[in-house]
Amino acid sequence: MSKVRQILDMNAFDGAGATGAVARRLGNLGAASVLFYREPIEMVSASGAWMMAKDGRRYLDFYNNVPSVGHSHPKVVEAVSRQIATLNTNTRYVVGIVDDYLDALKARLPDHLENVVLTCSGSEANDLAIRVARAVTGARGIIVTETAYHGNTALVTEASPSALKRGRLPDSVIAIPAPGHASYGEDISAGFRAATEAAMAELARRGMGTAALLVDSIFSSDGIFADPAGFLAPAAEAVQSAGGLVISDEVQPGFGRTGEAFWGFARHGLCPDIVTMGKPMGNGFPVAGMAARPDHLAAFCRETGYFNTFGGNPVAAAAGLAVLEVIETEALQANAAQVGAHLLSGLKALSARSPRIADVRGAGLFIGVDLCTADAEAAPDPEYTVTVINALREAGILIGAAGRFGATLKVRPPLCLTAGEADGFLRSLTDAIED
Amino acid sequence: MSKVRQILDMNAFDGAGATGAVARRLGNLGAASVLFYREPIEMVSASGAWMMAKDGRRYLDFYNNVPSVGHSHPKVVEAVSRQIATLNTNTRYVVGIVDDYLDALKARLPDHLENVVLTCSGSEANDLAIRVARAVTGARGIIVTETAYHGNTALVTEASPSALKRGRLPDSVIAIPAPGHASYGEDISAGFRAATEAAMAELARRGMGTAALLVDSIFSSDGIFADPAGFLAPAAEAVQSAGGLVISDEVQPGFGRTGEAFWGFARHGLCPDIVTMGKPMGNGFPVAGMAARPDHLAAFCRETGYFNTFGGNPVAAAAGLAVLEVIETEALQANAAQVGAHLLSGLKALSARSPRIADVRGAGLFIGVDLCTADAEAAPDPEYTVTVINALREAGILIGAAGRFGATLKVRPPLCLTAGEADGFLRSLTDAIED
Repeated sequence: MSKVRQILDMNAFDGAGATGAVARRLGNLGAASVLFYREPIEMVSASGAWMMAKDGRRYLDFYNNVPSVGHSHPKVVEAVSRQIATLNTNTRYVVGIVDDYLDALKARLPDHLENVVLTCSGSEANDLAIRVARAVTGARGIIVTETAYHGNTALVTEASPSALKRGRLPDSVIAIPAPGHASYGEDISAGFRAATEAAMAELARRGMGTAALLVDSIFSSDGIFADPAGFLAPAAEAVQSAGGLVISDEVQPGFGRTGEAFWGFARHGLCPDIVTMGKPMGNGFPVAGMAARPDHLAAFCRETGYFNTFGGNPVAAAAGLAVLEVIETEALQANAAQVGAHLLSGLKALSARSPRIADVRGAGLFIGVDLCTADAEAAPDPEYTVTVINALREAGILIGAAGRFGATLKVRPPLCLTAGEADGFLRSLTDAIED
Repeated sequence: MSKVRQILDMNAFDGAGATGAVARRLGNLGAASVLFYREPIEMVSASGAWMMAKDGRRYLDFYNNVPSVGHSHPKVVEAVSRQIATLNTNTRYVVGIVDDYLDALKARLPDHLENVVLTCSGSEANDLAIRVARAVTGARGIIVTETAYHGNTALVTEASPSALKRGRLPDSVIAIPAPGHASYGEDISAGFRAATEAAMAELARRGMGTAALLVDSIFSSDGIFADPAGFLAPAAEAVQSAGGLVISDEVQPGFGRTGEAFWGFARHGLCPDIVTMGKPMGNGFPVAGMAARPDHLAAFCRETGYFNTFGGNPVAAAAGLAVLEVIETEALQANAAQVGAHLLSGLKALSARSPRIADVRGAGLFIGVDLCTADAEAAPDPEYTVTVINALREAGILIGAAGRFGATLKVRPPLCLTAGEADGFLRSLTDAIED
């Protein structure tokens, strides 16, 4: 079992002594229940960066990666409410707002990614992307990072080491260390490229070939590795020059979160062959997508008929269009850059004086904080991470963990976070760490 | 290429001479474009059983299988609009309406299916169901019907012969003839059981074993085979008594469509191990699910961590709850039975006097009409089917085709269809056939 899986399990509700609403949930979802916290929270409403619980407490949402322009954003609510009252159908018909959205999305993407297939989830988008890469290249092999998570379908789970509880990856998937791994030394760029090339060589040896490097350019579940921007480019070039594809999984870093660019791959100067996207795309309305070159998509469609019943419905398009407009009109990418820099600097200051913080890394409003033991070894400390997560919950802040050791706080508030809210988080984290 | 795929392609827009909105769509979706009709329709709104086009024409929707309680139903619109303005989050928190929905859904399901995992699409639900069946049985083999369609993920596409354009099914999947196949003779029940047992023997020979019989109990894409109710039970019992699971794919027959029962499997007296559902569940809001026994779900979750970001969000639950309430308060299952019987009788009368109709079959508001050549052979006639589909479109009626030969009209209006609307369809179909 991976460490990140252990920590998730450690902080998950174990079901003992459940009563009331929590017992009902466990009865309904059974083993697939994923309730967060040792004492789960019942939520009743949410607005901006805040969620309100049934017991009257309110929580600042630093766990957020879906309602990215703010919970219950009125522009998204209005767009969805208007469109669902008017027309909700599938892509067998032309509906103007669907193409308005696709045009708006494509205006944000590299020119060569002319086709966008809308799906319901990032999982469906990555499932399709892997098949497109295999159809284009004729190869089977997929390279991912060692604690990567790319979704929940059968195919994508095979390429998501962090979802594995038992067993091992199939022969067609090789997981290489994430950029933070000690083996890469100081030159992450050269190290990551060398690891990618070694994986390509191994896939060749196995007779698989390399269909794609599938990478989340902010390495969310690996523990957030952002810098130096550009370190991903040599590995991507190695794959592409050997005929493989680069699939940039923008489910997490996309839509302005990193502040520096609208997409995570743009920070690294990549030219991805396929871009997948999801979570923040509809601010909670289920919508996701895969952008690809027309000839690549055609290579897949020659073999398999693809239709997605809900994918590209006009209500999803209305939600997606509203999200793009809000990011623009409220300058949320710039806000992510500014408030993110403020947060990063505060976290670095805290790290400088606290022996329990081993490292702080990030871009925009996506920051990883490595927590460690208090002794001289300063080893990753997942138990302590759970303690801090629960202390923050007591202080009214929702946050989660990630990383190879499950000892990285995932600092990921909505893009509308204010400097004041960031300061509130810093105070609470300081209290939790220094207590 | 399967016949059903051929007919879909035959009636799909081929892209030649596209201008305006249609050209824009083709530019956006590329090879994944699935526009319906040789001259695609641009839709602007929809209400009840009707869709309104940009050119002012209105169409009676007989293609419908998603907005099943009626397009833009005000109760669903209100429920979604209210919930999305209040709270939209994931299942890591307890939210009352999510469990209200799960409780309401479970009240409709057999008692042993205590757990329901909500997903975004029927594809995701079937993808999970196949993996649960494999985890429970330790076997790999899946038995489906020869023109089945169960969804679009990599794994589910492998079990969807109708999505294959080239190549063949993997060794782990065996497709048996649908109930209408001549080889079954008069006793469909015994024939289908024998075919299932032969597939199990072949899967054993291949070293795969049988994980599940995955079946849509109305055989939607096979061409709609409803009667005699109960014919599926012996095959299901054969699989279950050998330790395999029965997955009832209720994406199409579920939620009252067959009139006689809320679920298609109930018409056949089956006791499925897993039930998957989707399309009509949220009347167009992306929501789907898999119901299973707690011990079966646990067997899967021991191996793999499963979390679905959008699955089980409170807005989807609000949509789903509103759909269940509307089916109840508007007595839509009874309406499907009554108007469906009226429609079936009208179609049978037309068939009796028309040499172009070879057979009419169905239950409730899901009826298949086999179209054939006018000669003595009365062979399945996909070209003629396309002609009829386009004649109906000219008459203001939207309808599609299915079946092994692509020569079965898929009569599938919303559950709120009135007898008057059914009569309008019968008149237009009569004109189209007798012209």
